[in-house]
Amino acid sequence: MTTLCQQDAERREQTAQWFQGLRDRLCKAFETLEDIASDEIAEEVAGTFCKKKWQREDAKARNDNDNDNGNGGGDGGGGEMALMRGRVFEKVGVNVSTVYGTFAPALQREVKGASLDGTFWASGISVVAHPRSPRVPAVHFNTRYIQSAHGWFGGGGDLTPNEDDPAMRDLFHDAFRRVCEQHKQGRYEAYAKACDDYFTISHRNRVRGAGGIFFDNLNEDWQRDFDFVRDLGEAFLEVFPKIVRARARLPWSEAQRAQQLRVRGYYAEFNLVYDRGTRFGLLTNANPDAVLMSLPPLAAW
Amino acid sequence: MTTLCQQDAERREQTAQWFQGLRDRLCKAFETLEDIASDEIAEEVAGTFCKKKWQREDAKARNDNDNDNGNGGGDGGGGEMALMRGRVFEKVGVNVSTVYGTFAPALQREVKGASLDGTFWASGISVVAHPRSPRVPAVHFNTRYIQSAHGWFGGGGDLTPNEDDPAMRDLFHDAFRRVCEQHKQGRYEAYAKACDDYFTISHRNRVRGAGGIFFDNLNEDWQRDFDFVRDLGEAFLEVFPKIVRARARLPWSEAQRAQQLRVRGYYAEFNLVYDRGTRFGLLTNANPDAVLMSLPPLAAW
Repeated sequence: MTTLCQQDAERREQTAQWFQGLRDRLCKAFETLEDIASDEIAEEVAGTFCKKKWQREDAKARNDNDNDNGNGGGDGGGGEMALMRGRVFEKVGVNVSTVYGTFAPALQREVKGASLDGTFWASGISVVAHPRSPRVPAVHFNTRYIQSAHGWFGGGGDLTPNEDDPAMRDLFHDAFRRVCEQHKQGRYEAYAKACDDYFTISHRNRVRGAGGIFFDNLNEDWQRDFDFVRDLGEAFLEVFPKIVRARARLPWSEAQRAQQLRVRGYYAEFNLVYDRGTRFGLLTNANPDAVLMSLPPLAAW
Repeated sequence: MTTLCQQDAERREQTAQWFQGLRDRLCKAFETLEDIASDEIAEEVAGTFCKKKWQREDAKARNDNDNDNGNGGGDGGGGEMALMRGRVFEKVGVNVSTVYGTFAPALQREVKGASLDGTFWASGISVVAHPRSPRVPAVHFNTRYIQSAHGWFGGGGDLTPNEDDPAMRDLFHDAFRRVCEQHKQGRYEAYAKACDDYFTISHRNRVRGAGGIFFDNLNEDWQRDFDFVRDLGEAFLEVFPKIVRARARLPWSEAQRAQQLRVRGYYAEFNLVYDRGTRFGLLTNANPDAVLMSLPPLAAW
């Protein structure tokens, strides 16, 4: 018989392993895409990922001092950043992390599923790609599993093109729509709306990009929720390279590049002013390089 | 005999006029500096300022609807942005604004000198220069006068070089030090410390630049405070062009340019994550172009 505690541990193991495996496959897919050599970038060298492990500050301090911080299991964990600065991808980061500890008191009130004592365990994958060509859209994808009072999944994916192309937008949306509808009727509409609501740059009265899906606190049936999250990962792994292949050889003008740099400025504004994950990371002294991996390689204002 | 009310009105008139006049002289000084043609920029065209007036949203709405918003005098005012994208200055903005109305309730509690009913009048000048050459430092200067429960001045100036040059740093600091010490012993030390405290990028554990001065709620003797603020303006008008002239012809390398773009990334992070004026402006729907004038023309991460 499996006890509840064993079950929780198995779920942590399974999700963390899934995120890790998806990371490996995504990095491989991005490196393969570097082989595309359009006229503009043919002279440049194809990139490969550099990986860098990091540990949470509290965990480091505890290891240094051999001194628990008094909250029982202690705060700890860490992650691994994989960063490539290539030719098709001017900058692309794929981060995985598995962290645990106690939510800061302010956050304890904010997080819906926080346990009474605020302890949590969280694992996830986060991808942000900024292609060099303005004809290829930037993309963000993230899924995570959190255990606190209960366990839940969250995540999403959204596209930031520099031009209006309904076919490209539909290709991206349809990939997630199929997964959503397969798992639950009406889910796509709700998650697509949540995405538009979330990625709004209020001060500019515009959305960050062409949308996608966004969800949090998914806690219906663990196995089915996990299957859903895995299917989303598979869908992303299939659809984004397809979009890159379809567009990476399109020629581009100086004006299109300038427009891309302006869109990237808006992107940086959103992430630094509004994005919860970014602000939470910065204000809680997480590794700034990992938190800010999402920022564009070059942006203009 | 001058009544208190007349006196307040005269002070508003005098300060707003001073900021306006300083704006004109600064724009002229920056345009003159565009004549410097170092080897790297000799091919480029010297810039001139474009000016653009803007009105506060509430004021616009009131003018459109001829409908007061119910807080007595109403919210209103506006400003003028002057922006130059030139060759010595890749981007430099000089904004003046004069606005009045009622502090939002949240802000009423935050602002020390807010009147009981939250009404205020504020006028000021704000300058941010991002030179093209990485050998020339970026600079920020701002002074303002606010009337609410009482009247007070605030402001400061700080330098963001891309290399460590004590002589340049001292030249900048000494200009403000002289003005501070002339007006009150110990003021420079207090204001320089306030500047370092304020312009700290906590998540990177670094200060934004080489410091300067920062002050707020200055409310000792109106005439002497105003003289101090004017002397700061004169000092800035003298010292920054001197620094630009001394450094604008220095040759620079690709590595120095890349370093400048990284420093500008930190600059954008500070302004979007921490700067009170920027965040206040963005979250209260001020003109985003005026609020974000400070952002660098190009930044790298």
